[in-house]
Amino acid sequence: MVKYGIVDTTFSRVDMGKYAYDTIRREDPDGEIIRYTVPGIKDLPLGATKLFEKGADGVITLGWVGKTKLDKYSYLATSIGLIQAQLLSKRHIMDVTVHEDEVEESMLLALAKDRSTKHAANLVKLVRDGGSSLSSMAGKGIRQGYNNAGQILSED
Amino acid sequence: MVKYGIVDTTFSRVDMGKYAYDTIRREDPDGEIIRYTVPGIKDLPLGATKLFEKGADGVITLGWVGKTKLDKYSYLATSIGLIQAQLLSKRHIMDVTVHEDEVEESMLLALAKDRSTKHAANLVKLVRDGGSSLSSMAGKGIRQGYNNAGQILSED
Amino acid sequence: MVKYGIVDTTFSRVDMGKYAYDTIRREDPDGEIIRYTVPGIKDLPLGATKLFEKGADGVITLGWVGKTKLDKYSYLATSIGLIQAQLLSKRHIMDVTVHEDEVEESMLLALAKDRSTKHAANLVKLVRDGGSSLSSMAGKGIRQGYNNAGQILSED
Amino acid sequence: MVKYGIVDTTFSRVDMGKYAYDTIRREDPDGEIIRYTVPGIKDLPLGATKLFEKGADGVITLGWVGKTKLDKYSYLATSIGLIQAQLLSKRHIMDVTVHEDEVEESMLLALAKDRSTKHAANLVKLVRDGGSSLSSMAGKGIRQGYNNAGQILSED
Amino acid sequence: MVKYGIVDTTFSRVDMGKYAYDTIRREDPDGEIIRYTVPGIKDLPLGATKLFEKGADGVITLGWVGKTKLDKYSYLATSIGLIQAQLLSKRHIMDVTVHEDEVEESMLLALAKDRSTKHAANLVKLVRDGGSSLSSMAGKGIRQGYNNAGQILSED
Repeated sequence: MVKYGIVDTTFSRVDMGKYAYDTIRREDPDGEIIRYTVPGIKDLPLGATKLFEKGADGVITLGWVGKTKLDKYSYLATSIGLIQAQLLSKRHIMDVTVHEDEVEESMLLALAKDRSTKHAANLVKLVRDGGSSLSSMAGKGIRQGYNNAGQILSED
Repeated sequence: MVKYGIVDTTFSRVDMGKYAYDTIRREDPDGEIIRYTVPGIKDLPLGATKLFEKGADGVITLGWVGKTKLDKYSYLATSIGLIQAQLLSKRHIMDVTVHEDEVEESMLLALAKDRSTKHAANLVKLVRDGGSSLSSMAGKGIRQGYNNAGQILSED
Repeated sequence: MVKYGIVDTTFSRVDMGKYAYDTIRREDPDGEIIRYTVPGIKDLPLGATKLFEKGADGVITLGWVGKTKLDKYSYLATSIGLIQAQLLSKRHIMDVTVHEDEVEESMLLALAKDRSTKHAANLVKLVRDGGSSLSSMAGKGIRQGYNNAGQILSED
Repeated sequence: MVKYGIVDTTFSRVDMGKYAYDTIRREDPDGEIIRYTVPGIKDLPLGATKLFEKGADGVITLGWVGKTKLDKYSYLATSIGLIQAQLLSKRHIMDVTVHEDEVEESMLLALAKDRSTKHAANLVKLVRDGGSSLSSMAGKGIRQGYNNAGQILSED
Repeated sequence: MVKYGIVDTTFSRVDMGKYAYDTIRREDPDGEIIRYTVPGIKDLPLGATKLFEKGADGVITLGWVGKTKLDKYSYLATSIGLIQAQLLSKRHIMDVTVHEDEVEESMLLALAKDRSTKHAANLVKLVRDGGSSLSSMAGKGIRQGYNNAGQILSED
């Protein structure tokens, strides 16, 4: 049985953890799910690490980033930290991030839901089914939160 | 009994350590509190690590960042270092940062007090009560230093 | 027998993994090739690490980066992580990156193919033949994805 | 007896190592002082680490940063490295940095002297007297290289 | 006998490895020199680490950086990685970098030669003669690739 971890934040304006939970539950009804809530994005790497300590085989983190230059620096530091947490644990962290300024506010909920759902499904595939489970989609221009960009095909 | 660490700086223009101390004392009267003061933000990661060496279960750091581009680079380096210190110790650092230019000077004291107080309470919750203690607030758009942004709710 | 790893993404709009595979197969017909597909660039460092755990002697990662400032921060975090993954494993990761905005869209396929192919050949040389295998090309202004810039020669 | 380390650079246009040395000698006449000179700021983290290997209990580094965007990136990389060196050694590095463009050239000498002197005194306090030695100055808006900014006091 | 490592790139438009080699050979005729060539700057940290594994006491890396914003991000990631490689090996990496846009193209060869030569000499001094070998030059405003900036002297 696979154990999945979900880390979300109180800063986020959308309850992305719920979408991640529902998706993992649906995609792997036999899986175990453990959760952790932290204040903001810079707390996510430690939150994920805590769930690895409790036996999670893979984790999804759900970050929400404000509009200012400083928020973006926090995003950069967090991204570096989430990669480092993966290298130390040798386990996947699906790093879902919604930037408050990437779409108009009326679109944020749909974007956050779509991205959380698709990456939660990615987590199940990678952790339960292994590194070739996404290979049929490689190079296909798949997007989370937006329409797929699609593959650029050669003319021949 | 939980042991809490507080690291503040001589650079800060507000005595945020006092607010953090009073909050932890009020939220967990039985807790032990140890303190460390360093010159500036780039010294915070080592300061927190020193308190972990002395047995702190979790630490709050209280940083104050100047207005220049270089101050912001120092903020970025510090943020990366604080995350790394957490990954090495596997314990939380609540990273409180006030940027001298994020509000007008007359508002800085109130902002610093609010942020220090709220994150000190977050520290107590996470360290004493565990990773589900904040879960009822997940995705609610909670803010420290500002009014809460609130949750974006679906129409259905 | 050398074991090569290929990590590609579903985000990429060109199937660069195919070009890398074909090149490695052609350059070292006796080599073993293992593959891993992840959603996006920030997942590449862990993907490469997974292949090192499975015995890869060297890995090529195939990243595709969007146009926004945030995509570029993700690129920076990924680059730092890929270097760190190399330092931890003491094995090479040839880090192929295509930025969606570095040429016009009609040129992206050719660029991605050229860069993937040339760096896959570099990987075979470095991993199979060692650190002097590229020495005859040192300082020659070699480029992947563009025409070679060429060497600046002294007049004497 | 405490052992202090000083790392300076040949790039610096002011002999800050001398001010640091004189200050440590005056503040702790019984202390031992060991020194290391490197070419530029990116060599400081290793220089400090070398002195930790020789038994230094704490180190002061004295960096000088040029005016260009690239110099600032080097500053950022160095800052990250100096924090990492502290986390690995669990000992303090007082990171003194003078940016060639932060004041007019005629003011640089005085700034560099003031900053080196004050941070050398901070080093002695922290390393010899411990983490509460600076606590009476916490939140007081202390500056090195400039006049103190002072504390923002509440009206009540 | 000291063992020196040289890592250069095929991306570079000047054969800086040759200048480094000739300098080390002249400055320390008894030294052993080992070499490694990689494609580009992001491969330098691993290249240096490989030479440390082969017993190098110190390494010089010779990087060439393009003109774009992304090239500069690669420079930043590389700088962080080179510092990290030093902290892990506890040995020096003299990090020579030439930015293609720092001078006019006609000046690049002279700059690259000067910088490679001077830093190769620095490497010999630091590795063979130790951390005080450059101390007589501390704070003197020494430059590589440009004229020395010189020391700012006090009037008294």
